[in-house]
Amino acid sequence: MHENMNAAVCAAFEPELLLEQLRFLGKIGEEPQAGRTRLALTDADREGRDTVVRWMRDLGLCVRVDKIGNLFGILEGNRPDEPPLMMGSHIDTVGMAGHLDGAYGVLSGLAVLRAFRKAGVTPSRSLVAGAFTNEEGVRFQPDMLGSLVTAGGFPLDAALNCKAMDNGARLGDELQRIGYAGDMEPGTLHPREYFELHVEQGPVLENEGRQIGIVEGVQGISWTRVTLSGAANHAGTTPIGMRRDAGYAAGLVMAGVRNIAESLGTTVGTVGTLEFKPGLINVIPSEAKLTVDLRDPDELCLQEAERRLDELLKEVSAKACVEAASERLVRFSPVPFDRKLVAMLEDLAEKRGLSCRRMISGAGHDAQMMARIAHVAMIFVPSAEGISHSPEEHTGDAELADGARLLLDAVLKCLQNARG
Amino acid sequence: MHENMNAAVCAAFEPELLLEQLRFLGKIGEEPQAGRTRLALTDADREGRDTVVRWMRDLGLCVRVDKIGNLFGILEGNRPDEPPLMMGSHIDTVGMAGHLDGAYGVLSGLAVLRAFRKAGVTPSRSLVAGAFTNEEGVRFQPDMLGSLVTAGGFPLDAALNCKAMDNGARLGDELQRIGYAGDMEPGTLHPREYFELHVEQGPVLENEGRQIGIVEGVQGISWTRVTLSGAANHAGTTPIGMRRDAGYAAGLVMAGVRNIAESLGTTVGTVGTLEFKPGLINVIPSEAKLTVDLRDPDELCLQEAERRLDELLKEVSAKACVEAASERLVRFSPVPFDRKLVAMLEDLAEKRGLSCRRMISGAGHDAQMMARIAHVAMIFVPSAEGISHSPEEHTGDAELADGARLLLDAVLKCLQNARG
Repeated sequence: MHENMNAAVCAAFEPELLLEQLRFLGKIGEEPQAGRTRLALTDADREGRDTVVRWMRDLGLCVRVDKIGNLFGILEGNRPDEPPLMMGSHIDTVGMAGHLDGAYGVLSGLAVLRAFRKAGVTPSRSLVAGAFTNEEGVRFQPDMLGSLVTAGGFPLDAALNCKAMDNGARLGDELQRIGYAGDMEPGTLHPREYFELHVEQGPVLENEGRQIGIVEGVQGISWTRVTLSGAANHAGTTPIGMRRDAGYAAGLVMAGVRNIAESLGTTVGTVGTLEFKPGLINVIPSEAKLTVDLRDPDELCLQEAERRLDELLKEVSAKACVEAASERLVRFSPVPFDRKLVAMLEDLAEKRGLSCRRMISGAGHDAQMMARIAHVAMIFVPSAEGISHSPEEHTGDAELADGARLLLDAVLKCLQNARG
Repeated sequence: MHENMNAAVCAAFEPELLLEQLRFLGKIGEEPQAGRTRLALTDADREGRDTVVRWMRDLGLCVRVDKIGNLFGILEGNRPDEPPLMMGSHIDTVGMAGHLDGAYGVLSGLAVLRAFRKAGVTPSRSLVAGAFTNEEGVRFQPDMLGSLVTAGGFPLDAALNCKAMDNGARLGDELQRIGYAGDMEPGTLHPREYFELHVEQGPVLENEGRQIGIVEGVQGISWTRVTLSGAANHAGTTPIGMRRDAGYAAGLVMAGVRNIAESLGTTVGTVGTLEFKPGLINVIPSEAKLTVDLRDPDELCLQEAERRLDELLKEVSAKACVEAASERLVRFSPVPFDRKLVAMLEDLAEKRGLSCRRMISGAGHDAQMMARIAHVAMIFVPSAEGISHSPEEHTGDAELADGARLLLDAVLKCLQNARG
């Protein structure tokens, strides 16, 4: 492709329409003072999908849906037999979500394809903008399911048999119900490169005053459920020395998880859920169930954090005279992204005069699944105050436009270079 | 009263009938594998009351019910104008309760009156066995309501207007409904002495192998609700140093409450309830609400514990970058019992060859309210494994009989001595 064709595509890029589509999609499933809720495969998700499909059709894209409901808009290239380049993310949301998480990556992909269309340029290879099913994992477990199935990491049948957390509906039936049970085998569209543009969902870029984060990889994640079992007794009549207080034990674990994170430096640790039994003001808790979320970009550090958690549970068990049991709920190793693509993005950001830094994604993304089968990189834009999964989620329009322009640059570069 | 009359009354004492009545009353409100539930002023409570009234009538007692529903069986003495001696407790229960808590004190009082009846002895002063309304405080707040109103600590009108936690019913209407809205002014039966026999509800007597606890007083109680407010953020993307983690703060409070108790020595401290918002495995809690139950037999020590809790909250607030707010839910000063009666009980226990110790009640009892208007003491018998408020609550038959015999000794002694 010639330099002047690239220039024509860049000139045809319309950030305003991207921002308008983001706002429009954000209205779907919206409630006053409660953001929007488009849990996977609900009616609101269907309405969101229908909207994205309409926009894809408006661009004359070939729309494909696979058997797990992943939705793709394809702009066919001059060499359709070559592996395509894919951009994507998801349009399902958590409850009471912001309007950017996921949608930004999908609609930026569409904005890139629109620039090609408007410039009248046919890319050398096919370009795909995709929206993966059930990324958030609120309604069906596991999360990132659509991309995981695409990457061959989870059997299609098992995925279709997943039951919804809210009403027990089967995922396959819900796909049928909302009209997104496609006939394409997952993975048929096997991209060479996969780019995902996303809001950071953390405070680092804003705190450092940078416009762009080039994501080198995704942290490893280790989720553990801890059950501490003691004995329920009267809060007034049981001397401290005779207690088997599961609540006290939970307090030690909660403080200890923070110590593990601080001593390892790169690790983050969170106790996000905790339940007491019997949960009465004047009864010593007989049981405390809590979850520990540990993350680290380095596999060995994550293993060390897990080892220290085991050690902590042994110490707490002895100190508070309780039994401690733990169960690993989720375990993902860290996923490094493609080093060449990361370097390329960094180079392109500098050329555009965007201040950027390399960083690790603390959250999970479809990109980490796609990294099993494609060259992957991600671009982050700042999240105001680091807020995410909240109606307060916000990124400035100029920053959103900058991120999408960088995505377009990356696509043009890939089509142009040796790989393309 | 002559020594031989005392001997006749003692000889007429029937522990077997007491144990039988305890078992019978324990059947009322019983569910398989769930103990019994006779929440105050429910149909089950009415059935329990009807049963106790029938047993009072069987003994030819004068049955009186006051305006707050307290139920009394009176054995009139030779000098009816003298202040009576009262024995009592309550027959309402918590949910899934044992059969001894409360019922033991009421039915032991009846057993004492029965011994007088059977021996054909009329006491010098009137003797009363009473059951106070809503001691447990599960269905209506505050707890120990019937005795509190009797002692003039809570206005009758306000008490009658209390709303039930389960269905919002007005206490006065519930009394009418179950037929226990009496016409006597609370406090009309103003006893000189009040004795309450009760299971320990703690492990101390059993652990030390003693048969009897002579209760010197009730611990002071301080209940505080603590609300820790931070910021909900993504558990993966928010660096530890930028967190305002209300869950971590709660852990520090839970561990700190134990430290306060251990450093003060006499204090016990319990965090029995804790709730996180939003309570998701991968979200840093924005809010943690917990309760702190502090108790100490000494008012100044309890104040010191409260001061240290305030200090702890300030420290935690600074360390975890959260806001800490606290609200006092309940505050009772320690209640010392009558020193002469305590010494007398100790003396009587020794004479009977019962191994005993002085102790402080960690739980609240009607006796602490009656201590505002009468000379009060309590007798404890051991609780197996310290278990209370549970179907597993247990005290051996011989121990139950020993406690009731000591109560009878105390009644005879009071009637006989200068006060009588």
